[in-house]
Amino acid sequence: MSKPIRIGLLGLGTVGAGVVRIVNENGGLIERRTGVTLEVTRIAVRNPLKDRSVALQADVLTNDPHEVVRAGDVDVLVELIGGCDPAKQLVLEAIAEGKHVVTANKALLAQHGAEIRQAAELAGVGLGIEASVAGGIPVIKTLREALAANRIQSVYGIINGTSNYILTKMTQEDRSFGDVLREAQDAGYAESDPSFDIGGIDAAHKLAILINLAFGVRAELGDIYAEGISEISPVDIEFGKELGYTLKPLAIAKASNGEIEARVHPTFVPDDYPIAQVGGVYNAIQIVGDAVGDLMLQGKGAGEMPTASAVVSDIIDVCRNISAGQAPSSSSGQLVSDSGSDRVKPIESITSLYYLRFMVDDKPGVLSQISGILGNNNISIGSVIQQGRKAGGTVPLVIMTHTAVERDVRRALQEIDRLPCVGQAAVLIRVEAQED
Amino acid sequence: MSKPIRIGLLGLGTVGAGVVRIVNENGGLIERRTGVTLEVTRIAVRNPLKDRSVALQADVLTNDPHEVVRAGDVDVLVELIGGCDPAKQLVLEAIAEGKHVVTANKALLAQHGAEIRQAAELAGVGLGIEASVAGGIPVIKTLREALAANRIQSVYGIINGTSNYILTKMTQEDRSFGDVLREAQDAGYAESDPSFDIGGIDAAHKLAILINLAFGVRAELGDIYAEGISEISPVDIEFGKELGYTLKPLAIAKASNGEIEARVHPTFVPDDYPIAQVGGVYNAIQIVGDAVGDLMLQGKGAGEMPTASAVVSDIIDVCRNISAGQAPSSSSGQLVSDSGSDRVKPIESITSLYYLRFMVDDKPGVLSQISGILGNNNISIGSVIQQGRKAGGTVPLVIMTHTAVERDVRRALQEIDRLPCVGQAAVLIRVEAQED
Repeated sequence: MSKPIRIGLLGLGTVGAGVVRIVNENGGLIERRTGVTLEVTRIAVRNPLKDRSVALQADVLTNDPHEVVRAGDVDVLVELIGGCDPAKQLVLEAIAEGKHVVTANKALLAQHGAEIRQAAELAGVGLGIEASVAGGIPVIKTLREALAANRIQSVYGIINGTSNYILTKMTQEDRSFGDVLREAQDAGYAESDPSFDIGGIDAAHKLAILINLAFGVRAELGDIYAEGISEISPVDIEFGKELGYTLKPLAIAKASNGEIEARVHPTFVPDDYPIAQVGGVYNAIQIVGDAVGDLMLQGKGAGEMPTASAVVSDIIDVCRNISAGQAPSSSSGQLVSDSGSDRVKPIESITSLYYLRFMVDDKPGVLSQISGILGNNNISIGSVIQQGRKAGGTVPLVIMTHTAVERDVRRALQEIDRLPCVGQAAVLIRVEAQED
Repeated sequence: MSKPIRIGLLGLGTVGAGVVRIVNENGGLIERRTGVTLEVTRIAVRNPLKDRSVALQADVLTNDPHEVVRAGDVDVLVELIGGCDPAKQLVLEAIAEGKHVVTANKALLAQHGAEIRQAAELAGVGLGIEASVAGGIPVIKTLREALAANRIQSVYGIINGTSNYILTKMTQEDRSFGDVLREAQDAGYAESDPSFDIGGIDAAHKLAILINLAFGVRAELGDIYAEGISEISPVDIEFGKELGYTLKPLAIAKASNGEIEARVHPTFVPDDYPIAQVGGVYNAIQIVGDAVGDLMLQGKGAGEMPTASAVVSDIIDVCRNISAGQAPSSSSGQLVSDSGSDRVKPIESITSLYYLRFMVDDKPGVLSQISGILGNNNISIGSVIQQGRKAGGTVPLVIMTHTAVERDVRRALQEIDRLPCVGQAAVLIRVEAQED
């Protein structure tokens, strides 16, 4: 039997409890399979006296995270407290103490990943980040190791389960955003303050991490366009259905001509795309590489046990080196270096297909005015839905464009919104699809 | 710049050419990303004078594979000649020479994996096998590393692209097996001797490798039930559609109560299962683990570049250790050890849902006779399709069962096939679905 690997946890919430449970229940199996013996020796929690749902050894709990970070009987620090303060300081301190670090903290990595990676490299310790994106789905390992031979062309997918749950329910049950959000909060699928999830911020954090791995580019949060799902109306989901599209909360990164597109927004995808079928709290990530072609990974993107599965696999990865008496190699766990050659494009420069909905007076000539403005701005029309007449009222006019430049679309919409025949600001939803 | 990693190839067919192409085109990127410099120094081919589609350095070609195996300027031997003889001997010789080995050879691994793994462990060299199953899809890495914390409950999926292509075409175009096979051969999607693919042998080889990784069990080929797709009639695909099922060539492994089910056969899956949508030459593998829940990986399971992507990622993995001056760790690349506790169940002992089609005389009392025999054998009926009357002729009677034991089903069919009212041997197709 090898020397046990001693784990220090910061935080014993759902994921932390999952890690303890896996060590308790599957520890023997993990040892037989990998030669690594795991032991949880220290856990920092706010209140050490609180009842816990998992079996713990005596005296492992403390309310001082620095005690865990500095403990002599901790080989790997697992940071599960979230946020940047004090997580960043604790992680850097642990690295300085020569401890390997495993973290599920996407906000920390998106904002301070480069600094933490450099510190880990200098100290010669491992840094495991699999749990930071898409829970139990091994997207980090796949990008960093399995696809290491590929030039990555695009990474896109559903990486926020809360948003996917809400849009799926709105689609299936034809209900409003607010209504479904309240239900999701009651069911525990959405936080009491859901703004990070529904505003696209959580997905933008994760996308920044993926972009760094896929393209070797350091994407600042400010470079990533993020649009949430709170303004989505059931009527647009319905029109999408008529046109053969499903609305999904996508995070999208694409490389072309030395530039990266990076954006998070609700997106129509054709109903027959595999990602259109990914419902509920599931996550799915599609990666296109020049050699592998398209690869899709799909599974549970959050939750106690799936995320703990990723944390423990990271612990085993960094520890395989410890047991073999080896320092971790420079590429086991770190973000790749910024190549410096690519940059993130502003949203105005992207091209996409667009779904546009206008509320217009039900009068002759309206379609011709609007399509004229679109044409003058280099936007050509793919299909149109103009709904049944309502005497004297406003009616929806839905237009699906061919590929257009976002800047042109925005300029056209400003012009159209000023027309007297147009009743309210246009709705714009981007569409991911191959043009025929 | 680090010392280059020198690659010796055995074979320069489609995958070998893909490996050379990746090294030529993405070598610089791979070096920036991983610190590993790749160089192809030796290639053994049958005819060194033949024109090649890829750019090669002078003097790398030889017609003597032993020369490559023994060459002093080869760090990693990549075996792409297939079959067991002489591949096994060459691989063992390379290991004895202290070379790391990467292989895409599923037949070799399924039949001699344990011996090769032991030799590699003893010699302290790495063994990369990602390309042996499902081409560019990183199922080996996912099972061995990403899910290392999980007790695996099941692995199932589409791991033979030729069979999936044929069944997809038969389903979409309502055509016969022989007709689609000929077309697939003409298009290069099926070999001129397709028996390994369509007979389920290729999938059984791959399943043996997956079972070893997932359950720590050594599955002999003889333990894996393999049934091909050549007997499938369009009429059964049609009846499946009526009942809401799609026919897919599945390889299935499940663990329960210390036993493993291991089988390859055409299988009905509910239309709304993600795997039902995986068409053409795509592969997909669903893995269920106790912590991660269900995870699906989907992509191109064969072809020059996807398979070469897996080979090169294996080369990089074994080489990360070389560059860092480290011996490979005991768990990097090897199959896991046989735990000795689980065993593969005979097919007669499995339970499943069953689709059964009988050709029966169009007379009163027939359904009652047949359902009586099924009932006497503990088989309960889920649904029935009895088609329109044809005076005096035979008509199909389709029965979908609830969960039943295969042994009982086989006994019942023997009895039913002897009935005077039954015209030909019953058709049996297994169904993978959750019972309500």
